[in-house]
Amino acid sequence: EAREVLDHGFVRVIDYMGDDSAIVQAARVSYGAGTKHVSNDEGLIRYLMRHWHSTPFEMCELKLHVKLPVFVARQWIRHRTANVNEYSARYSILDREFYIPQPEQLAAQSTVNNQGRGETLQGAEAERVLRLLKDDAGRAYDHYEEMLSQDGQQGLARELARMNLPANVYTQWYWKVDLHNLFHFLRLRADSHAQYEIRVYADAICEMVKDWVPAAYSAFEDYRMGGVNLSAKGV
Amino acid sequence: EAREVLDHGFVRVIDYMGDDSAIVQAARVSYGAGTKHVSNDEGLIRYLMRHWHSTPFEMCELKLHVKLPVFVARQWIRHRTANVNEYSARYSILDREFYIPQPEQLAAQSTVNNQGRGETLQGAEAERVLRLLKDDAGRAYDHYEEMLSQDGQQGLARELARMNLPANVYTQWYWKVDLHNLFHFLRLRADSHAQYEIRVYADAICEMVKDWVPAAYSAFEDYRMGGVNLSAKGV
Amino acid sequence: EAREVLDHGFVRVIDYMGDDSAIVQAARVSYGAGTKHVSNDEGLIRYLMRHWHSTPFEMCELKLHVKLPVFVARQWIRHRTANVNEYSARYSILDREFYIPQPEQLAAQSTVNNQGRGETLQGAEAERVLRLLKDDAGRAYDHYEEMLSQDGQQGLARELARMNLPANVYTQWYWKVDLHNLFHFLRLRADSHAQYEIRVYADAICEMVKDWVPAAYSAFEDYRMGGVNLSAKGV
Amino acid sequence: EAREVLDHGFVRVIDYMGDDSAIVQAARVSYGAGTKHVSNDEGLIRYLMRHWHSTPFEMCELKLHVKLPVFVARQWIRHRTANVNEYSARYSILDREFYIPQPEQLAAQSTVNNQGRGETLQGAEAERVLRLLKDDAGRAYDHYEEMLSQDGQQGLARELARMNLPANVYTQWYWKVDLHNLFHFLRLRADSHAQYEIRVYADAICEMVKDWVPAAYSAFEDYRMGGVNLSAKGV
Ligand SMILES: Cc1cc2nc3c(=O)[nH]c(=O)nc-3n(C[C@H](O)[C@H](O)[C@H](O)COP(=O)(O)OP(=O)(O)OC[C@H]3O[C@@H](n4cnc5c(N)ncnc54)[C@H](O)[C@@H]3O)c2cc1C
Ligand SMILES: Cc1cc2nc3c(=O)[nH]c(=O)nc-3n(C[C@H](O)[C@H](O)[C@H](O)COP(=O)(O)OP(=O)(O)OC[C@H]3O[C@@H](n4cnc5c(N)ncnc54)[C@H](O)[C@@H]3O)c2cc1C
Ligand SMILES: Cc1cc2nc3c(=O)[nH]c(=O)nc-3n(C[C@H](O)[C@H](O)[C@H](O)COP(=O)(O)OP(=O)(O)OC[C@H]3O[C@@H](n4cnc5c(N)ncnc54)[C@H](O)[C@@H]3O)c2cc1C
Ligand SMILES: Cc1cc2nc3c(=O)[nH]c(=O)nc-3n(C[C@H](O)[C@H](O)[C@H](O)COP(=O)(O)OP(=O)(O)OC[C@H]3O[C@@H](n4cnc5c(N)ncnc54)[C@H](O)[C@@H]3O)c2cc1C
Repeated sequence: EAREVLDHGFVRVIDYMGDDSAIVQAARVSYGAGTKHVSNDEGLIRYLMRHWHSTPFEMCELKLHVKLPVFVARQWIRHRTANVNEYSARYSILDREFYIPQPEQLAAQSTVNNQGRGETLQGAEAERVLRLLKDDAGRAYDHYEEMLSQDGQQGLARELARMNLPANVYTQWYWKVDLHNLFHFLRLRADSHAQYEIRVYADAICEMVKDWVPAAYSAFEDYRMGGVNLSAKGV
Repeated sequence: EAREVLDHGFVRVIDYMGDDSAIVQAARVSYGAGTKHVSNDEGLIRYLMRHWHSTPFEMCELKLHVKLPVFVARQWIRHRTANVNEYSARYSILDREFYIPQPEQLAAQSTVNNQGRGETLQGAEAERVLRLLKDDAGRAYDHYEEMLSQDGQQGLARELARMNLPANVYTQWYWKVDLHNLFHFLRLRADSHAQYEIRVYADAICEMVKDWVPAAYSAFEDYRMGGVNLSAKGV
Repeated sequence: EAREVLDHGFVRVIDYMGDDSAIVQAARVSYGAGTKHVSNDEGLIRYLMRHWHSTPFEMCELKLHVKLPVFVARQWIRHRTANVNEYSARYSILDREFYIPQPEQLAAQSTVNNQGRGETLQGAEAERVLRLLKDDAGRAYDHYEEMLSQDGQQGLARELARMNLPANVYTQWYWKVDLHNLFHFLRLRADSHAQYEIRVYADAICEMVKDWVPAAYSAFEDYRMGGVNLSAKGV
Repeated sequence: EAREVLDHGFVRVIDYMGDDSAIVQAARVSYGAGTKHVSNDEGLIRYLMRHWHSTPFEMCELKLHVKLPVFVARQWIRHRTANVNEYSARYSILDREFYIPQPEQLAAQSTVNNQGRGETLQGAEAERVLRLLKDDAGRAYDHYEEMLSQDGQQGLARELARMNLPANVYTQWYWKVDLHNLFHFLRLRADSHAQYEIRVYADAICEMVKDWVPAAYSAFEDYRMGGVNLSAKGV
């Protein structure tokens, strides 16, 4: 049940707490007997989402095991409202696994958006880029191993040797988050402004969340994802 | 399986995620293959607790349903690292239930500790205090109902009427928290400096946690609860 | 420079860190040399607000001293992303100050919105309500003093005696928050769904924020307060 | 007034809010008139620290500008209770600056502590390691520039090209945190278990904090840094 992402990555559900009915249950404790007449759980969930009543969504929790390139991990970890345990490259030796983009993802710098991609690179340029990425990663890893080696030498400390590895090396972690903050993560990272390489993880998680809490996910999709923020002046 | 606390309160487990082995599992992802040789889960948990490696404990989560007096809720809610949905006294009508201390809890102001209790009140003084608490609560609730009543009058808004109720009225909430922050809560609130009325809730939760994650709880008890903080100078 | 709120409350700025230019400064570190050509700070701030780039707003911080009724404090404290130090009613004796609504705020329960107010109470009903609120508060405080008194008796512990006081008694605290989370607070609490008694505090803070960070406040007003969140279906 | 750290890094104070007296002021609002007789601010601060009364320390705030290697940034960012704006390598081009350890910091893997360093490498091995680190960094940067170049080619997107850079490349950010959580950071990162390269940053910040809030820093040093946590069994 793990979903593969990028060339060596994955997202896997380890555990979860609650479901659509846990959101409703928490909302009903707030409103007491008063909500008895709302016959429809889905309607209540949509109401909560629309009115930014976010605390009932915090009653659900998801724990994932994720394998991802370090430069994606650096974006991901900025979401502070989560619990994380990452593989320690001080303690252990990283595997020889690097993210190398698919040819159709080898994009040029966007000419309109400083923080984005433009057209796909072609021909010799694309080939040269791929070769550089592969060669540098391979060589960096060879030297990583060489520095670590205790064969006829002392061997550099792991916490130092790892600094030779480029940002496309893979790491992994356990990541646990409540549903409200997961939606916040997905809104920002399944969005078109997010970098492709984190967006594919967000997309994979969207699929998992849709299975897990279908009513909440559908409300999220309608009111957050596709939503537009109009200014008072724009209205 | 709800535990009764005080005269009308309770703590009830609604759901939980993880257990002792989830802590170990998360710690092992950090240390990778390197920890294979640690044969003993309990030993690893004690090691994590002793060295303030707190993030593996965040991998467990507990959701409680709690009924408690408002003045206790006011202390409890100060713990921000939790998810809460409380009964809404704007939306619904509160029940006629007030915390009235047991005679042995009717304590005088401490003469040595400004923020604490001294000896138990006796005789006429104790009786007078109990009568005042009961009468005032009863009268406040009568007037609450009177103001709310729509019998021959409009009836005051609930969100206003509730302000007539004293701080010993009961409220209830769903409260969800990870194990690391729950331990932090318990360290502060099962402590002798905490007010008796919140301490009994913390004590009840301690029993539940002991059943749920026995190894983690035992490490907590040894390294946090009974622990002493010596200053550098004191060492 | 304190602003009076309700009958005995106030909001007072104690200290602040940063201003509009601190938001811009932080945004520019993110975008590096690349933003040199954006000539206009106000434009950059509006851009950040519109695209939910919230972390630059976290670079500003505001510290307030607030005096407020306990039932308002109970709503306010639900905002966890703030730092708080409240007057201790375990340690100290509360003053004889209670919130008594102005006649035009004595509203009936709304008939359309369970969590809201309807028309203003009139005539005898209004008078009766006011009298009950005043009498009960006064009597509760008399008994609070009586229970505390050490005149010819031991005197009940403060931490117990305070539970006789109704929710309209005033408390006070220091409250410190970053600008992003302050805006989140204001969006929820200066909103028409918020209870009037907390809304007037939010309104007072809005005025202060407008003076402090005029460009950020204006962007907030346009994109959050008056703004509209259209759903995918609504677009 | 910036402090240099490592070979190209620094820590610089941008702004701060509060000082020792702000801690005392907040503590006194909690304890009301009751603390008038405590003549001594320093004594009160030590009392708060000793008893884990942490919220008054949250009333002070520090904002730093930090330049640091990416592998240090990855450890630092794990501290979630802070506000951060980092230089964007999606938006801007990183400088050719890499952390290369001083010879005395070129340590072998510890033989007793899996997550630590042992003796300093010597002679040929040390030279070889230094050369590898320098050459790989230089080559990676050359290729980074080559891939970005729009000279006779489209030029790879910045957000992709940066993944070729090793973890010792420098980044920078604004980092803002309250004093309680800063102390928590310093306790963990100025500690001997922390990696040397983050410890030197923590040490530099310790010096700044000592100047800023001397009484609080001295209490921190006594009760947290040098202090001992005795377990129930140890007592
Ligand atoms: C020597 C050392 C070795 C380490 N090794 C590893 C390793 O191998 N693998 C690894 O993954 N990490 C490792 N870490 C990082 C460590 O697990 C913590 O992530 C880091 O020290 C930050 O600590 P913190 O969570 O207490 O700080 P903060 O994130 O600043 O949090 C402070 C406190 O706030 C509360 N808090 C803040 N945010 C949340 C939230 N979202 N949910 C719940 N509570 C919250 C908690 O009570 C927390 O204790 C190591 C750290 C050190 C010092
Ligand atoms: C009109 C109205 C009616 C309400 N009615 C009720 C009611 O009936 N019952 C009730 O219980 N509450 C009620 N509330 C309170 C509401 O549920 C929120 O608790 C309150 O508005 C604070 O919002 P917040 O959680 O977004 O703010 P903050 O706590 O300031 O949090 C801001 C954001 O930070 C993150 N965050 C902060 N702390 C945590 C944490 N510990 N874990 C995870 N994420 C965190 C979340 O992303 C959160 O959205 C009501 C609020 C309003 C405005
Ligand atoms: C005996 C006793 C007496 C007390 N007396 C008073 C009093 O007189 N007045 C008073 O006001 N309070 C008083 N308190 C409450 C106390 O100040 C704390 O608010 C309460 O104990 C919660 O502790 P906490 O903040 O560590 O917990 P949490 O809020 O759960 O936080 C845990 C940790 O997470 C981090 N964290 C979480 N949220 C934030 C945030 N928004 N910003 C920064 N860091 C965050 C911090 O590192 C924090 O230590 C008292 C508490 C006790 C136990
Ligand atoms: C397209 C895109 C581009 C980006 N570019 C940059 C960039 O150039 N530079 C850069 O530095 N970052 C950049 N970011 C990261 C961004 O600034 C946020 O750090 C990230 O999106 C996490 O969002 P968050 O803070 O809302 O989420 P979380 O950290 O999960 O927080 C959720 C909410 O909880 C509350 N909260 C949680 N922790 C705290 C805390 N410690 N203090 C106060 N409130 C807290 C806040 O209300 C917050 O909104 C970018 C993000 C995206 C999506």
